Amino acid sequence: MTEAEFLNLFKQKAETADRAVLSYLPQPELYNKTTVHAMRYSVKNGGKRLRPILMIEFFNLSGGDEAIVYPFAAALEYIHSYSLVHDDLPCMDNSELRRGKPSTHKAFGEWQALLAGDGLLNYAFETVFNHADDLNISDKTVCACLKELAKAAGITGMVGGQNLDLESEGKRLNVGELTLLQAKKTGALIKAAGRIGVIASNGDENTLRLADEYCENLGRMFQVTDDILDVCGDEKLLGKPVNGDDVHDKSTFVSEMGLDKARETAAGLTESAIKAAKSLDNDFLAELAKYLLTRKS
Amino acid sequence: MTEAEFLNLFKQKAETADRAVLSYLPQPELYNKTTVHAMRYSVKNGGKRLRPILMIEFFNLSGGDEAIVYPFAAALEYIHSYSLVHDDLPCMDNSELRRGKPSTHKAFGEWQALLAGDGLLNYAFETVFNHADDLNISDKTVCACLKELAKAAGITGMVGGQNLDLESEGKRLNVGELTLLQAKKTGALIKAAGRIGVIASNGDENTLRLADEYCENLGRMFQVTDDILDVCGDEKLLGKPVNGDDVHDKSTFVSEMGLDKARETAAGLTESAIKAAKSLDNDFLAELAKYLLTRKS
Repeated sequence: MTEAEFLNLFKQKAETADRAVLSYLPQPELYNKTTVHAMRYSVKNGGKRLRPILMIEFFNLSGGDEAIVYPFAAALEYIHSYSLVHDDLPCMDNSELRRGKPSTHKAFGEWQALLAGDGLLNYAFETVFNHADDLNISDKTVCACLKELAKAAGITGMVGGQNLDLESEGKRLNVGELTLLQAKKTGALIKAAGRIGVIASNGDENTLRLADEYCENLGRMFQVTDDILDVCGDEKLLGKPVNGDDVHDKSTFVSEMGLDKARETAAGLTESAIKAAKSLDNDFLAELAKYLLTRKS
Repeated sequence: MTEAEFLNLFKQKAETADRAVLSYLPQPELYNKTTVHAMRYSVKNGGKRLRPILMIEFFNLSGGDEAIVYPFAAALEYIHSYSLVHDDLPCMDNSELRRGKPSTHKAFGEWQALLAGDGLLNYAFETVFNHADDLNISDKTVCACLKELAKAAGITGMVGGQNLDLESEGKRLNVGELTLLQAKKTGALIKAAGRIGVIASNGDENTLRLADEYCENLGRMFQVTDDILDVCGDEKLLGKPVNGDDVHDKSTFVSEMGLDKARETAAGLTESAIKAAKSLDNDFLAELAKYLLTRKS
């Protein structure tokens, strides 16, 4: 696959993922509530749709009607979105910008951002329950997939990672501690994307194992490159100030490893992800790993 | 049933409900995270366990192994608890006390309260998924019950009601608007308690209809009496200052109807709830309605 071919494919897949995510959002015509507008704003505000893209791709490894996985992909993205809205609040990271636009509490006020986040987390589950019947998704699939989602998003996953992250402010973390923190805070949802994709399409154990391997490596690489961009990135492309983590006196992979070692680590993780993608015989996933390694935003 | 018999029965049922709610909480030994302590604190902080008591009672109308309904009862109470934690935050009601004890953000800090609330909402769903297998709860029951729960808690239910509530601060609401607001903000979860109890025990349509009738009337009565207690209650018994809503310049049933009409309305709603309880041939539910009408806290 040439780079141009990959970019074209990536664009198509991102559009499909984006459509799935947006199509299930609550309609302002039906619920004329500010919270709905704040929820929609939070989800619509850019984003690469990486998690939905991954989920749909892993679903298609084993095949079946792709529409089955759309509500799960939307649900995962709503949970990702809610976490960003709450993370940006003044009592957490106090971020005024998110992808170059005002963060939800800047656009809608603090309590609306709080409610919109709560609404999105709840709505993630609601989306799947509301559409399982139309899409002929079995109760078994709904339960197996939402169990993965809830586990990844909760106290053993993302919420647990946020706790570790906030408790570690002002403390020095070593690379092992950072890796654990990020495995929970951002890795858990990325891993869930792969797992839910495989489970929703009744994929076999080997596919599930390779999905874990790919997503774990990709998630870790994504975080290391995030830390690299935070030091060397272009503010305009990132839509946020660089050296942001520094302000909060946080350990990052760059601060703990140095820039060269961080780059080397990211490259190694990318290689491992590519290896899993090759075992799955999937060029797109291999190219996606390379693309994310060299991303500018 | 004499009052003493009712009180004895109520105590027993409240203990059973409380045990169910507490037994599924995340264990601090397993997850040594501050967020887990904040989650446990928020759920343990008193409360009548009204929703779990109702759910278990409605489950037992149609029978079956009572343990099946416990994770759902716990899930509902976790969602109720999270809503109180987030409601108490400075950007919402800014309440320093909850049932006479420091609210979660006063005890653990603001970002921990935010995370604990997020954690509890997520953990509600997780609890059911984690225990469905041990308790032999079918995927069909899990999906049907959690669909009710998510709907009641979300943008069309509780979150929608919170939005209406906060948007109406400083505005005068009439009785119809207040009734709609409260039907969403507090009524939806109370109604879900009855519905999930019936659905989890495979109750028939008539039982479900009477559960709706009972819970809707009870929920409305509960809110009217809440507003009455807010004016005439005893601060020590309530564990919060009286005239609290007045401070925020909020319309209440008392401010819009006057005290006498509010009392009359509460009595009428109680009668309707008792009528539904009698159709269900359930003395406990009838006595419970009377008890909640005359409650002091």
